[in-house]
Amino acid sequence: MKKIEAIIKPFKLDEVKEALQGVGLQGMTVVEAKGFGRQKGHTELYRGAEYVVDFLPKLKLELVVADEQVEAALEAIQTAAKTGKIGDGKIFVSTIEQAIRIRTGETGDTAL
Amino acid sequence: MKKIEAIIKPFKLDEVKEALQGVGLQGMTVVEAKGFGRQKGHTELYRGAEYVVDFLPKLKLELVVADEQVEAALEAIQTAAKTGKIGDGKIFVSTIEQAIRIRTGETGDTAL
Amino acid sequence: MKKIEAIIKPFKLDEVKEALQGVGLQGMTVVEAKGFGRQKGHTELYRGAEYVVDFLPKLKLELVVADEQVEAALEAIQTAAKTGKIGDGKIFVSTIEQAIRIRTGETGDTAL
Ligand SMILES: Nc1ncnc2c1ncn2[C@@H]1O[C@H](COP(=O)(O)OP(=O)(O)OP(=O)(O)O)[C@@H](O)[C@H]1O
Ligand SMILES: Nc1ncnc2c1ncn2[C@@H]1O[C@H](COP(=O)(O)OP(=O)(O)OP(=O)(O)O)[C@@H](O)[C@H]1O
Ligand SMILES: Nc1ncnc2c1ncn2[C@@H]1O[C@H](COP(=O)(O)OP(=O)(O)OP(=O)(O)O)[C@@H](O)[C@H]1O
Ligand SMILES: [Mg+2]
Ligand SMILES: [Mg+2]
Ligand SMILES: [Mg+2]
Repeated sequence: MKKIEAIIKPFKLDEVKEALQGVGLQGMTVVEAKGFGRQKGHTELYRGAEYVVDFLPKLKLELVVADEQVEAALEAIQTAAKTGKIGDGKIFVSTIEQAIRIRTGETGDTAL
Repeated sequence: MKKIEAIIKPFKLDEVKEALQGVGLQGMTVVEAKGFGRQKGHTELYRGAEYVVDFLPKLKLELVVADEQVEAALEAIQTAAKTGKIGDGKIFVSTIEQAIRIRTGETGDTAL
Repeated sequence: MKKIEAIIKPFKLDEVKEALQGVGLQGMTVVEAKGFGRQKGHTELYRGAEYVVDFLPKLKLELVVADEQVEAALEAIQTAAKTGKIGDGKIFVSTIEQAIRIRTGETGDTAL
């Protein structure tokens, strides 16, 4: 299993969620975050205004998926989260060794 | 060392914390999250009312523990977080390669 | 690539951010967290007052860096986040297998 973490622009959440559901992925945890980007003092558009950025509001999505679903998930997130403007965000992938569904005690892929 | 991430119902925090303390684990970081579950449009109970869920408030607990404590921690969380109703949450386990306690510079298990 | 997670005292964010920029690291995601420490009922200073701690407000910093930058990042965080008083926080390191910069599709170290 892999954990996919995606830091996206907040207004993109619905599109990303729908893209993920389109490839059969519903389980997801979302956390509000402050993002500090690569260019110190670069500008980003936020609600129509340009900001010289110290930090910007971002959402961090976390989803754990079976190995076979990683590519579809990455593709879905990338396509849906992209505006082509700076600040579109990042995706990080790491390994999850164990997953447990608390209600049933199921483990592994069937717990996702 | 392992990182245990548990997404739980918020009202279960105290019980889970006490269960973890019962097996000797006090260090923990908790983040507020929005949870999107497996069933699109399923209902969950939240504060006594039934919701057709888009998302639900959840807490994400993160605790890094020594390898020997993983099983006890998982058992404690699972037992304490369980209501038997849908939405009880998930637990994910991954590897942590290095830990540092900032005040002392200690590393590894003794830093936890 | 490695993910560095640092749980720090909130008022230390600016110092830590500047220390990281000093070693060439600007990309970072910050999440507000509640911290539960090692000693049940120990006291910490928060805004000048002593608290018997159940939990304390912390910030969790997450930054993904190239392998060659891990040591410099850890050193920067540790030095900048340290007050010498209890509650200075922890740093955890784990492996990231894939990184994608959404706007450009770049992957790996060049995506960071
Ligand atoms: N190395 C990193 N580690 C952790 N989070 C990061 C890292 N780099 C960026 N982020 C997070 O991703 C968000 C968006 O980054 P951003 O898309 O601006 O990256 P970028 O490399 O500057 O790309 P762009 O040129 O398209 O703006 C940041 O605000 C931050 O939250
Ligand atoms: N694959 C996943 N990746 C990341 N987070 C997830 C995943 N699946 C669920 N979650 C998180 O866990 C929370 C609780 O999930 P939930 O317990 O409803 O899972 P479930 O499989 O639908 O089980 P149940 O049938 O008992 O409801 C979700 O709201 C979400 O925050
Ligand atoms: N094992 C752990 N797993 C996850 N988070 C932890 C763990 N231990 C501590 N933390 C987080 O780090 C924060 C700061 O911990 P703290 O610095 O108080 O650790 P400590 O071992 O008690 O060190 P000190 O004696 O200097 O206070 C906690 O409030 C919590 O958010
Ligand atoms: Mg940027
Ligand atoms: Mg559910
Ligand atoms: Mg402490």
